[in-house]
Amino acid sequence: MKAKTSFNPVCPIPISEYPNVLLAHGGGGKLMHNLIGDMFVKEFENPLLSAMHDGAVFGVGKERLAFTTDSYVVDPLFFPGGNIGTLAVNGTVNDLAMCGAKPLYLSVGFILEEGFGMENLWRIVQTMKSEAVKAGVQLVTGDTKVVDRGKGDGIFINTAGVGVVEHDLEISPASVQAGDAILLSGDLGRHGIAIMAAREGLEFETEIESDCAPLAPVIMKLIDEGIEIRCLRDLTRGGLASALVEIAEGCGHEINIEENAIAVREDVRGACEILGFDPMYLANEGRFVLFVAETDAEHALEIMNPMLVDSVPSKIGRVSESNSGDVILKSRIGANRIVDMFTGEQLPRIC
Amino acid sequence: MKAKTSFNPVCPIPISEYPNVLLAHGGGGKLMHNLIGDMFVKEFENPLLSAMHDGAVFGVGKERLAFTTDSYVVDPLFFPGGNIGTLAVNGTVNDLAMCGAKPLYLSVGFILEEGFGMENLWRIVQTMKSEAVKAGVQLVTGDTKVVDRGKGDGIFINTAGVGVVEHDLEISPASVQAGDAILLSGDLGRHGIAIMAAREGLEFETEIESDCAPLAPVIMKLIDEGIEIRCLRDLTRGGLASALVEIAEGCGHEINIEENAIAVREDVRGACEILGFDPMYLANEGRFVLFVAETDAEHALEIMNPMLVDSVPSKIGRVSESNSGDVILKSRIGANRIVDMFTGEQLPRIC
Repeated sequence: MKAKTSFNPVCPIPISEYPNVLLAHGGGGKLMHNLIGDMFVKEFENPLLSAMHDGAVFGVGKERLAFTTDSYVVDPLFFPGGNIGTLAVNGTVNDLAMCGAKPLYLSVGFILEEGFGMENLWRIVQTMKSEAVKAGVQLVTGDTKVVDRGKGDGIFINTAGVGVVEHDLEISPASVQAGDAILLSGDLGRHGIAIMAAREGLEFETEIESDCAPLAPVIMKLIDEGIEIRCLRDLTRGGLASALVEIAEGCGHEINIEENAIAVREDVRGACEILGFDPMYLANEGRFVLFVAETDAEHALEIMNPMLVDSVPSKIGRVSESNSGDVILKSRIGANRIVDMFTGEQLPRIC
Repeated sequence: MKAKTSFNPVCPIPISEYPNVLLAHGGGGKLMHNLIGDMFVKEFENPLLSAMHDGAVFGVGKERLAFTTDSYVVDPLFFPGGNIGTLAVNGTVNDLAMCGAKPLYLSVGFILEEGFGMENLWRIVQTMKSEAVKAGVQLVTGDTKVVDRGKGDGIFINTAGVGVVEHDLEISPASVQAGDAILLSGDLGRHGIAIMAAREGLEFETEIESDCAPLAPVIMKLIDEGIEIRCLRDLTRGGLASALVEIAEGCGHEINIEENAIAVREDVRGACEILGFDPMYLANEGRFVLFVAETDAEHALEIMNPMLVDSVPSKIGRVSESNSGDVILKSRIGANRIVDMFTGEQLPRIC
C-alpha cells in the first residue's frame, strides 16, 4: 500500500471569497499574482521558483542552464501577424532570452479537441517549424493528447524550453540598482489589439498586426557587446505596468517612468480609446524592458536600434534612490501617479 | 513587415479520410503513431525527435541532459490511488528515468477552466508537492492560464522535465541486440482499470488502485550496479503491446514474449473480461519493460525485486535473431500470434 498524501485543509486562497477559479486568475493581474505567489510558489517552495523570473536558471555540472514553460490558449487561433504556433515558439524562446539564455531546445505538448480540423493543425505545425528555424531552436520532444468534443477549445499548446547561460550576469529584479536606466524596446499594445480585433471582428482603418517576434538575437547581442544587463522582462500578459510593478517589488526601489517616452502607435491608441483599454496593461509578444547602468544606456540603445524589427527603442525612466517599491508615472501633463497591477481581467486568452 | 510562412497545402495525414482530429489520435495506438510520425516528426525533423524515445538526450557543454514533456488530461481528476497531480509529477519523472536520466527539475503549466473549484486545485497542488519530494525533483518554473467555462475540463496540467545522464549507455531501441532478455517490472493494467472504474462508477469486489509510482530510483540503481541497459520503456498509453511494437520497429529484430510470464492480477483480469479489454493494451503508470543482455537478466531481477512497491518483476521473453521486426506472443495454450498496435481507442483520457 502506498502512503497517502495528507492534505492541509486550509487553502491559501480565501475560499469564502474565491470558491472557484475566475478568468482573472489567469489574466496577468493581481488575482493571478496572488494565486501564483500564495499557492504555487509557497507550496512548491524553492529558491529557483521564488525568484519569480520568466524562467529558472540553475547549474548542472559545469554548465548554467535556463528552463521555462508556457501554455498557449489564445482565442482566436489565427490572428493578424500570426497564429497560436507563432506564440508557442516565440513566447517560450523569449522567456529564455529574458533569463539571458541562448535558447537551444523546445518541447511541445498538444492538447487537441476531438473534431479539430486537421488542416488547421497542419498550418500551425508548419508555423511552429518555421518560427523555430528563425529562432535557432529545435523541437526535440513532445506529447499529444486528445480530449472529447466540448472539453477543450480546438487546440492548446504547451512549450517548455531549455537554454544555456554563457555569461556571469545575474539577470533578476534583485540586481536592479538605484540610478539604473530603464529602456523599452518599442511601441506598446499591438498584440493585444490585434487579438481583440480578430476576436470581436472589429475593423480599423489600418490592420493592426501582432508584434510577436523572437527577442533572443538582440539580447544575445547586448550581452556579447558587454552591456551589464541588470534585469529583463518581456511585456506579455499584464503589459508594461505589471512587469514594472513586479520588478519594483522584487528590487524594493522606486521606479520612475515618463509617459511621454512610451511609444504607442496612433492606430493602437485610437483602438484603446474606443475599447476602453490602457496601453500600459496591454499584452505584447515582441517587446521587453531592460534595466542597465545609466552609463550603458546610450550604448544599449545603439545596439538595439538596428536589430529590432519595425520598432524603435527608447529610454523611459530610471530607478530612484527611494525604497518605496512603487512605480511612479509622470503623465503627459506632468502629474505623477502610482502605477498598480490591474485587479480584473483586461483581455482573457491573449496568449 | 514580417516574412510570412508559406504553407504546404498537402497535409501529411490524408484529409479525405481524417478531416478532423479523432479521440484515437491521442489514444496511444496506430492513429496517434501516424499523426506523430507523419506530421510532427517529419515536419520538425531532427535526429533527437526522430529517435521517438520517451525524451530527448543531448549534450550541453560537458554535460549530457534529458528533456521530456507530457500533458495530463485524465478523467476523472481523482481516482483510486491518486489524482491528476500524482500523474503529472510521476509521468514526467518516469519519462526521464526511461532515458536513463536522473530527474532534477520540472516545469508546470496549468490550464484551468473558469469555475474550477479552488479546493480541488489546492489538493492537486499539495499532491504534486509531495510526489515531487518523493521523486527528488523540484518544481522550478511554471505558467497558469484560465480558459472560459465550457472551453476546458476543470484542469489540464503539462509538466516538462530536465534530468542529467551520468553514464555512457545509449538507451534506445537501436541498442537492442539479438539474444537480449526482456524483463517486465510487474503486473499489468491496474491504472487503466482504476480510471475506467472511477469514470463509469463501476464497483469490483476489491478496489483496484492505480499503480502510479516513481520509477527513477530502481532505474538509477540498475545503472549504478553496472547493468548494461539496452532499452527501457514505461507502459503508459497503449500498454505493453504498443511499447514492444515500437521497440521492435526501432531495432528491426523480432521480439518473442510468453503470455504465461506476464502477470495480471486476478481482479484486473476479471474486470478486463467484463469490460472487453486486453491487459496487454491497458495503460500503466508504474510499470516498465527493460531490455538487457541475457547474462545480466538474473542480476537485474535481483536488483529490481526489493525496490518495486507491490509488484514482482519477471522475464517475459527475448529478442530473436530474426529481423522481421514483429512482436510474437506465445499464448497460454502454446499458439503463436503477432501482437500489433490497436487501431481504435481503448480508453481515452487515461493520463
